[in-house]
Amino acid sequence: MGEFLNLKSVAQAREILREFEPVDVETVNLQEADGRVCATDIRAREDMPSSARAAMDGYAVRAKDTFGASDAVPSFLRVRGSVPMGDVFPDSVGAGEAVGISTGGVVPLGADAVVMVEYTSEGEGDELEIHKGVAPGENVIRPAEDIRKEDVVIPAGRRLRPQDVGALAAFGIPQLTVYRRPRVAILSTGNEIVAPTETPRPGQVRDVNQYALAAQAKKDGACVLLGGVARDDAAEIAARCAGLLEQSDMLILSGGSSVGVRDLTASVLEGLGAEILFHGISVRPGKPTILSRVGKKPVLGMPGVPVSALVIYDMFVRPLTWRMGGERDREEWPARVKARMTRRVPSVAGREDYLRVRLISRNGETWAEPIMGGSAIISTMLKANGYVVIPSHAEGVAEGEDVEVLRFCG
Amino acid sequence: MGEFLNLKSVAQAREILREFEPVDVETVNLQEADGRVCATDIRAREDMPSSARAAMDGYAVRAKDTFGASDAVPSFLRVRGSVPMGDVFPDSVGAGEAVGISTGGVVPLGADAVVMVEYTSEGEGDELEIHKGVAPGENVIRPAEDIRKEDVVIPAGRRLRPQDVGALAAFGIPQLTVYRRPRVAILSTGNEIVAPTETPRPGQVRDVNQYALAAQAKKDGACVLLGGVARDDAAEIAARCAGLLEQSDMLILSGGSSVGVRDLTASVLEGLGAEILFHGISVRPGKPTILSRVGKKPVLGMPGVPVSALVIYDMFVRPLTWRMGGERDREEWPARVKARMTRRVPSVAGREDYLRVRLISRNGETWAEPIMGGSAIISTMLKANGYVVIPSHAEGVAEGEDVEVLRFCG
Repeated sequence: MGEFLNLKSVAQAREILREFEPVDVETVNLQEADGRVCATDIRAREDMPSSARAAMDGYAVRAKDTFGASDAVPSFLRVRGSVPMGDVFPDSVGAGEAVGISTGGVVPLGADAVVMVEYTSEGEGDELEIHKGVAPGENVIRPAEDIRKEDVVIPAGRRLRPQDVGALAAFGIPQLTVYRRPRVAILSTGNEIVAPTETPRPGQVRDVNQYALAAQAKKDGACVLLGGVARDDAAEIAARCAGLLEQSDMLILSGGSSVGVRDLTASVLEGLGAEILFHGISVRPGKPTILSRVGKKPVLGMPGVPVSALVIYDMFVRPLTWRMGGERDREEWPARVKARMTRRVPSVAGREDYLRVRLISRNGETWAEPIMGGSAIISTMLKANGYVVIPSHAEGVAEGEDVEVLRFCG
Repeated sequence: MGEFLNLKSVAQAREILREFEPVDVETVNLQEADGRVCATDIRAREDMPSSARAAMDGYAVRAKDTFGASDAVPSFLRVRGSVPMGDVFPDSVGAGEAVGISTGGVVPLGADAVVMVEYTSEGEGDELEIHKGVAPGENVIRPAEDIRKEDVVIPAGRRLRPQDVGALAAFGIPQLTVYRRPRVAILSTGNEIVAPTETPRPGQVRDVNQYALAAQAKKDGACVLLGGVARDDAAEIAARCAGLLEQSDMLILSGGSSVGVRDLTASVLEGLGAEILFHGISVRPGKPTILSRVGKKPVLGMPGVPVSALVIYDMFVRPLTWRMGGERDREEWPARVKARMTRRVPSVAGREDYLRVRLISRNGETWAEPIMGGSAIISTMLKANGYVVIPSHAEGVAEGEDVEVLRFCG
């Protein structure tokens, strides 16, 4: 019952969730590094580039040989060949000379600038006309201009993006230390819950949360262990939990939509030696969420109602999964959209509400349409593409009110 | 050379890219369905809920027995037990009677509403006080109110999100037809390119694109085949391409930063019987991108400069990977942020420019700071967290100008 819960505010719950530590680390090869979280700062092993390189296709020259060149009064240089890709030009560039060069090519000794090919034209024999002067250093990437040796290229705690993987390749880092993927075990509980392969009898429902929560945790970089469905029996749940905890870093219990079962979950947790960190958050949906700790491992009691479980995962468990996977300071909702509410939705002060909304366009304006239906209505999550948060000090949102939508990203 | 390219506009290039078809389909189990793309519309196999269910914890009652109830003048009912979770109440609810019920429980015959537990108090023996009347249907989810049998729950072409996987579980769909993951082969070319495990000699550089492009394609749901590095030799490249094409649905050639090599790539493609669809897009960076087709398979020649390759992937290849993986109408940039430019960046009319920018906060305003440095500067992509697109009709963006930033998501 609500009355017996020791409710935490959203801020308090988040603070408590930040106490958990990342799991240990392992070594992976470059080819498997994408999407993993760096466990150490990656520093550049050398200057990049190590020698001056052309930033454009064209000709390496001495800049002063081109001063004042224009279409009307071109400079004339003599082409001495070109820089071979993958090698260096074997000679230096003298006064009045030019050497063909492609983007990325090593600028030969003697040259201090590159004239873009667009501003040149080939004349008779090895003659080259320059139609636009260049300043010293123009179109040249200086040694270490891109990245200096020992610079931090990728900070510890970052989940590696494609460009980060590219940087690892550029610096010749064939292996690196990353956080192990946290192992998240999920156990559904409830006498009314049957596996998706079964046909429910009247009063029964198929297990939704195990699969939805597994998909959420996998998306956040975890390895998932599906624990199956336990009946509402303290001994059975406790035995299964003990087994799952041995094999995992985090345990999620889903279920307990009925009053008696909530008490059951709490008593099972106490039997496991779990320290209860909170039992209840001042939110809707998902109020009766339980967080406890067994040793270093979080054990969560999630609401059995599917929409509540999805929302609580999005709002509270995702940052925990990220943190245990080693991510630091990752922004939870990079896609925030300003919109106006299509209709009024009341709330209750003292409670943070997570409205499921759909973004729609009306006369060029973006509107947030709340998907009506309580947390027992699973289609609300299928139709939604974001949340509107009604803060705990507000008593709802008004029709036409400006809101910020936290969009689901991909 | 730019002069010899047959440049397409961005709109033309995108139009041509839309001609490619999705790969074939396969069957997966529910447990492996997350992140896969549905190949058929998934329809509800039954009404949900199949019978009336409680939307709240409380008591199932006949609404008219509670009419006018208030704190001052409560209604008094007699509790007849409670609905067991996972089963149905064996009797019907008569006049003046109430049956305890949890969220999700099947509303017993005779009852037509649920009084929230918060508005009740238990009296002597089986007596229950009701402090607030309910209307018929209140706190009850009607049969089929959530989803009606035969409704499309998940449309074909959607990449399955956690909530979609939950819906599949709810409807007892243990297997489903999804698009096969497209196989993307990547071959780096260039005499100057060495593997990341090697120490480059002067003039050489390590292969960045193979690993960065692989990470991009994997993120977009593809299986990646790393083809290694080929030297600038038409026969070698052609032989490797032929082998890779046999094993893949799409082939990406990366390289050809030098003029001669671009021509080499084009001639190799023609030798493979590839139909060249375009050679060059009016963009910066990445102008000399080649798209061709061998049978039904796209073969792309991507710029060798790492930043250009990353940008061209983001802007043109990602939607192609999605399409070939069966996705329909997915929004490319769900995270768009309004910001102001910290400085002027010139451009050239007739060309679309993709600026790498970093979002920063200044006096509560969001600003987009362009990361200076050309496409040869790999650190520009490490520092950036989004793009600003300068449209082809503009000659740049002004300092302080309002722009939209396409943010990198996650």
